[in-house]
Amino acid sequence: MSGLGRPGHYNSYGVAPVFASAATIPGFNTMGQTFIRAEFAPNGYWPPHRHPRAASEIIYILEGTMEVGFVTSYPAYKYYSKVLNKGGAIMIPFGLVHTVRNVASEKCVITVSFNSQNPGFIYMPDSVFTAKPAINSTYLAGAFKLDEKTVKDLQTKMWYI
Amino acid sequence: MSGLGRPGHYNSYGVAPVFASAATIPGFNTMGQTFIRAEFAPNGYWPPHRHPRAASEIIYILEGTMEVGFVTSYPAYKYYSKVLNKGGAIMIPFGLVHTVRNVASEKCVITVSFNSQNPGFIYMPDSVFTAKPAINSTYLAGAFKLDEKTVKDLQTKMWYI
Amino acid sequence: MSGLGRPGHYNSYGVAPVFASAATIPGFNTMGQTFIRAEFAPNGYWPPHRHPRAASEIIYILEGTMEVGFVTSYPAYKYYSKVLNKGGAIMIPFGLVHTVRNVASEKCVITVSFNSQNPGFIYMPDSVFTAKPAINSTYLAGAFKLDEKTVKDLQTKMWYI
Amino acid sequence: MSGLGRPGHYNSYGVAPVFASAATIPGFNTMGQTFIRAEFAPNGYWPPHRHPRAASEIIYILEGTMEVGFVTSYPAYKYYSKVLNKGGAIMIPFGLVHTVRNVASEKCVITVSFNSQNPGFIYMPDSVFTAKPAINSTYLAGAFKLDEKTVKDLQTKMWYI
Amino acid sequence: MSGLGRPGHYNSYGVAPVFASAATIPGFNTMGQTFIRAEFAPNGYWPPHRHPRAASEIIYILEGTMEVGFVTSYPAYKYYSKVLNKGGAIMIPFGLVHTVRNVASEKCVITVSFNSQNPGFIYMPDSVFTAKPAINSTYLAGAFKLDEKTVKDLQTKMWYI
Amino acid sequence: MSGLGRPGHYNSYGVAPVFASAATIPGFNTMGQTFIRAEFAPNGYWPPHRHPRAASEIIYILEGTMEVGFVTSYPAYKYYSKVLNKGGAIMIPFGLVHTVRNVASEKCVITVSFNSQNPGFIYMPDSVFTAKPAINSTYLAGAFKLDEKTVKDLQTKMWYI
Repeated sequence: MSGLGRPGHYNSYGVAPVFASAATIPGFNTMGQTFIRAEFAPNGYWPPHRHPRAASEIIYILEGTMEVGFVTSYPAYKYYSKVLNKGGAIMIPFGLVHTVRNVASEKCVITVSFNSQNPGFIYMPDSVFTAKPAINSTYLAGAFKLDEKTVKDLQTKMWYI
Repeated sequence: MSGLGRPGHYNSYGVAPVFASAATIPGFNTMGQTFIRAEFAPNGYWPPHRHPRAASEIIYILEGTMEVGFVTSYPAYKYYSKVLNKGGAIMIPFGLVHTVRNVASEKCVITVSFNSQNPGFIYMPDSVFTAKPAINSTYLAGAFKLDEKTVKDLQTKMWYI
Repeated sequence: MSGLGRPGHYNSYGVAPVFASAATIPGFNTMGQTFIRAEFAPNGYWPPHRHPRAASEIIYILEGTMEVGFVTSYPAYKYYSKVLNKGGAIMIPFGLVHTVRNVASEKCVITVSFNSQNPGFIYMPDSVFTAKPAINSTYLAGAFKLDEKTVKDLQTKMWYI
Repeated sequence: MSGLGRPGHYNSYGVAPVFASAATIPGFNTMGQTFIRAEFAPNGYWPPHRHPRAASEIIYILEGTMEVGFVTSYPAYKYYSKVLNKGGAIMIPFGLVHTVRNVASEKCVITVSFNSQNPGFIYMPDSVFTAKPAINSTYLAGAFKLDEKTVKDLQTKMWYI
Repeated sequence: MSGLGRPGHYNSYGVAPVFASAATIPGFNTMGQTFIRAEFAPNGYWPPHRHPRAASEIIYILEGTMEVGFVTSYPAYKYYSKVLNKGGAIMIPFGLVHTVRNVASEKCVITVSFNSQNPGFIYMPDSVFTAKPAINSTYLAGAFKLDEKTVKDLQTKMWYI
Repeated sequence: MSGLGRPGHYNSYGVAPVFASAATIPGFNTMGQTFIRAEFAPNGYWPPHRHPRAASEIIYILEGTMEVGFVTSYPAYKYYSKVLNKGGAIMIPFGLVHTVRNVASEKCVITVSFNSQNPGFIYMPDSVFTAKPAINSTYLAGAFKLDEKTVKDLQTKMWYI
């Protein structure tokens, strides 16, 4: 679990999560839920990501101010986002990419509730550019409308760990 | 359906699909499946994408040579890809981003089978950069490790339609 | 919702809950989750109860000290309980009767996560003794091993509202 | 299975059930149903109970006269009950506490059909008062509106076996 | 419902069923079960049939002696059958064709429990030979290894109603 | 798999199928789909059959002309059939018996998509007449409205393998 950060130990994205899940607590097995408490340093954020096996996700603000949003699917790609303060909550619908970032100058703390024992994480830019072996860079350049050199450069960077 | 292309009419990505689904054929309603026949011009491709409501997808090659691959989830991000010729088939697991591109110098034709009445499409770069209203560009620059000017430029481009 | 209490307004059991659910927020519809923040006055408690339509429930302690437990089914009827402090969490398995009470001399605050849009509540003693019309008191006296006069008396009392 | 009684051998509640279930017949495994034939002596009854893993239950009267009822959930707690004679049937909805008792002066015989391989039984008063270890008696006294001495006394009694 | 026979009124196959289902009792709606009581005259029978929407079926003998059996799927086509007397029960697995016939010289009475609100009936020979419009007789002759004249004759007969 | 035929090797019904399924490809395990490519010689056909574990089936014509139909359940037994040419597709609803035959003077090729990992096959006449041990011939004669000698003769024949 260390790759996902530890309480009080921010990772390089400024996030320190603690997980209550079947992976960390045997009693959660078969219960169909996962629960996270996460601290965000000022400017800390989760890159756009999604959870391939969670039907939905509730984010609840314990402390601070977070901006949370999600993008609907093709062809509308509508972006719903909201700045939430202490006591605020938002529901992220199944399968949609969402953004989560601290927009305050202080630490923020949230809880996250998934209705899945094993929601999974796919950080969006990371999953494409750190795929191993590398995805064809000409193809990615076309798909991302970037020049191939930029794509090759992104493919050498370190991503969310 | 015109936004998704028409048979014999390649869209700007070189793809011409025809859909048999509950949206186009009433008898498909409640049957839990969608079927596509798609032609790809030389160099035609689908950008990395996924289907938020399909449990799995089978691609079968009727004609030509396609490279098809998919990326597993965090933290492995393993990329499984294969060049398939006529008669070849591949299974795309639930929720994973996959790549589909014509790697032959001639037209390719494939069928696609989803075990969902309404699998949905989310083209990966598009969903982030054409989100409306725009996602905060500083945040995206950090997440994609691109400079903010490049992100803002991508946010003005036309994507897969 | 007033019957379930309001934030800062303890009901006669010393509980003040706030609900985020499909009943109170349209966006929760079809998402398969319900979320509660509840304050408990000193000695405040929820009577033994269960949720007929939730697959499981996570209780997380934001502040104070709570005792939470649940009873397994026939024939073992094993009672698992735990005193939880701030940051503690417990999983209540599907369908089991559970106990939730403030065992501190100060206010306690918890969150509750259900993987159901509409978990429902059945408070155990209440559901039997306030059933309308009344359940046959001779039958209840036998089943509860109480004398019939006591049962009839219980059937006139006010219960959790 | 002896704890559940045997045909022709009434238990202390005057019930003699026979089970056809995955626990007693291998061929029932994975079939999603359980079937019971039960005899009730005059005044025999099942205490208020429920089945935590059955979606519904059908009771059908082969012989005699039974009163069967169920209580809806909070806040209505409406009690629907009916006296059924030979050939009569009633449907018990998912998760609700129900009452089943012989109201004739002769033996009654019923069949019970569950759409679950393993419906489970939770007898209501029993599950609270025989929980092991014992649930805090002050808490139970408050919840049941009984004095603590009565609760402690109930906690020493023998219940449905 | 008259097409399915009435209690005490045997149809041309010697069967008199009564249905407790969502179609006949509103309270069965959404409960996921159907229950039948059926009388069979001596030699009465149900033709080989199946229930396309029931996960399983329990037959229980109230009176008399019935032979009940079912055939597994390709390629084994194993036939499991059993003569059942009063008190006997059998489980019919999902989707398999089964045979039900009175093998006693007296009336038999059974109950049937389906874990489906609407199991449906497909009587095997009937569904092929009374299909409207008629299925191509040359094709059926080949499939059934009968001469075409016999098939055409079967296509004019009256079947189970 | 040889019992189901091999590509280019027609079986006695004039069918040569190739299966992509969990039984033949490990990666299909848990994916919830099966895919078949099948060639039919002139006059080749599948006997009326069904798939007890597939929710639905899509047949798509790659080459030639096929007649495909299905029969609804009791009591309507309506037969929907259609002659399909190259590029044509049809949806077979869950559990219904269907007919599939080459009505052209040339080879036909189709694909078949099931939304099940293991749809199963039950060829209708075969399942009754080759059941082992044999189903009572008097009973079958009554149910099929054939004389018992014909039934006994059918019970000795070889069926679809």
